[in-house]
Amino acid sequence: MGKVFILAPDSFKESMTAKEVCIAMEAGIKRAIPDATCIHVPMADGGEGTVQSLVDATGGVLVPMEVTGPLGLPVKAHYGILGDGKTAVIEMASASGIHHVTDETKNPLITTTLGTGELIRACIEKGITDIILGIGGSATNDAGTGMAKALGYRFLDKNGHELQLGGGFLGDLATVDTTNVLPQLKEVNITIASDVTNPLCGLRGASVVFGPQKGATPDMVQRLDANLLHFSQVVEDQLGIAVADVPGAGGAGGLGAGLMAFTNSRMKKGVEIVIEYTELEQKMKDADYCLTGEGGIDFQTKFGKTPFGVAQVAKRVNENIKVIALAGYIGKDVESLYEQGFDAIFGIVPGAAELKTLLESGKENVARTAESVARLLK
Amino acid sequence: MGKVFILAPDSFKESMTAKEVCIAMEAGIKRAIPDATCIHVPMADGGEGTVQSLVDATGGVLVPMEVTGPLGLPVKAHYGILGDGKTAVIEMASASGIHHVTDETKNPLITTTLGTGELIRACIEKGITDIILGIGGSATNDAGTGMAKALGYRFLDKNGHELQLGGGFLGDLATVDTTNVLPQLKEVNITIASDVTNPLCGLRGASVVFGPQKGATPDMVQRLDANLLHFSQVVEDQLGIAVADVPGAGGAGGLGAGLMAFTNSRMKKGVEIVIEYTELEQKMKDADYCLTGEGGIDFQTKFGKTPFGVAQVAKRVNENIKVIALAGYIGKDVESLYEQGFDAIFGIVPGAAELKTLLESGKENVARTAESVARLLK
Repeated sequence: MGKVFILAPDSFKESMTAKEVCIAMEAGIKRAIPDATCIHVPMADGGEGTVQSLVDATGGVLVPMEVTGPLGLPVKAHYGILGDGKTAVIEMASASGIHHVTDETKNPLITTTLGTGELIRACIEKGITDIILGIGGSATNDAGTGMAKALGYRFLDKNGHELQLGGGFLGDLATVDTTNVLPQLKEVNITIASDVTNPLCGLRGASVVFGPQKGATPDMVQRLDANLLHFSQVVEDQLGIAVADVPGAGGAGGLGAGLMAFTNSRMKKGVEIVIEYTELEQKMKDADYCLTGEGGIDFQTKFGKTPFGVAQVAKRVNENIKVIALAGYIGKDVESLYEQGFDAIFGIVPGAAELKTLLESGKENVARTAESVARLLK
Repeated sequence: MGKVFILAPDSFKESMTAKEVCIAMEAGIKRAIPDATCIHVPMADGGEGTVQSLVDATGGVLVPMEVTGPLGLPVKAHYGILGDGKTAVIEMASASGIHHVTDETKNPLITTTLGTGELIRACIEKGITDIILGIGGSATNDAGTGMAKALGYRFLDKNGHELQLGGGFLGDLATVDTTNVLPQLKEVNITIASDVTNPLCGLRGASVVFGPQKGATPDMVQRLDANLLHFSQVVEDQLGIAVADVPGAGGAGGLGAGLMAFTNSRMKKGVEIVIEYTELEQKMKDADYCLTGEGGIDFQTKFGKTPFGVAQVAKRVNENIKVIALAGYIGKDVESLYEQGFDAIFGIVPGAAELKTLLESGKENVARTAESVARLLK
């Protein structure tokens, strides 16, 4: 009987989507072992590429949508509907990401998660009840108040006026008005893909740790941190939900906290969500080999990135499977990964070359390396 | 029982000798399979590195010696005595190579193989009866007359005066005087390592094909080609040896022809000689795996270079052996090598990098890749 290969790579950033990596791997494997069975399970870690990979892995669809960007201007975003037709997958960065602002325009006092909420609302209005939401790469520091506004929440000052959008104005928050919240919201479960464990406020909080990379000056960091603390106190007083100290509340400028406060949500590591929704564990059980990989792999890979998660699953459910990782960049001390479920790790780079050339030739390099790996295994 | 690995790489030019590659390969293999048996057979193709590899492979010694360089000035050269104590190995380039001249001084009218002859003579005077002579990389076009002079031959003009050194003066050759030839020479067998099949003269001859890269202008090429033809006619008339049209006579500026005319010699592909003297075939018989490789490997590799020769031997004597090549550079269409005895080919490069960095990190990259290969095989 032909050998069964699970192909479960992450994307190779700026070079190939995870699906494209799967296709290149299969091309190489089939040249060596024509009767091999190759099962494509394009992976992701909850960050960029998660929507694409989950859509590809489940036979779903990508839905483009224009939403309000972080600066209040329209931007092109998208979400995915998985193959089951009832689960949506959203990357907050698609609507509210740092790539939508420039060094000149980035300003976490005013940036908003409103667009992320618009994506969520669009899904809910389609009848979706399960949403996977990746919250990496945000340009915002608004505790998810923009997101909540799109779902019907209103954030009012002491005079009953709606606050301006952005974390810079949350210091004036007096009332959270839930009168007009989308009724279906309470039937919706959101799984937050986040590897961040930071609390909302303080030295490890959203504003101090992530504010500067979003454009916050030291003064702005101080104001934002105080505003988020005030926000959490108002939320606790009025909704009875304490979010400030929950690990992960500080993710995406406090979007973590906002999701906890305003939606039914749970937080989980990105790669674990992807493993769950792609049913990777089940697929791995009867396989002989697993090929994984990503653009770069080094000793840090064992701290939560995709190939590590894949290797862990593989060895947990199938003691005979061999896990082979391919990577465009291999850093120091990859040998330490051999204790973590990896059987072999190969670079795909054919020789001295500039990054640009390598990014362009990724597919042939993956195929060539996969072919040699398969030739050793047959 | 532990697996047996034959480690038979060429050198990685400008990065590692073949022996150093063997050591790095073993380090990686042993990390994966501690009880593996690793047999080092450092290889070469008759060109640069052949003396070092054969000395390393047989447990011989390197002997330094000052000789006459191609321009008549002293240069530091060396030869090797193999572990058997009776075979010497010489690279003509060590004494008479193109690296001993500059763009300004290169001049194939006057460059001489005298130093190569001095190395041969030194070996003979030590009692050596078998000499392996690699003839690549020459700066000369003198039909080996300099080499022969060192062994006692005299090249005279019609007035009985000795000719000036260099191919530019062979047009005046009238007499080859053998009176003072070293008596032991007739007991000496020289195996010429050469992959060149060019004849001495004409459009495919030494002067036309290789003269320009040694500094010959079109006028010089014409003069050198006419001189070599004249030389071959005098040799045929007086010694009864026709060398002009023998394949390989045009190697190293006609040194091939000179060796045929003035010594007991046979010509053989470099890698085949190295395979013979390292007893690679015998060592391959009981091995499980063979790791080979070189700095660069591509579809041209199948035309005579080291890994190709190694793969051919491996598969000829051992149908169960797997041959794995490692390379610092992998070119186009390496897949065609899979029909030629190679089971797998892996690049050792860890990511986008400049050549200089890669040359410096060769050992760790070979070890890392060999480790992953061995982990797949165990």
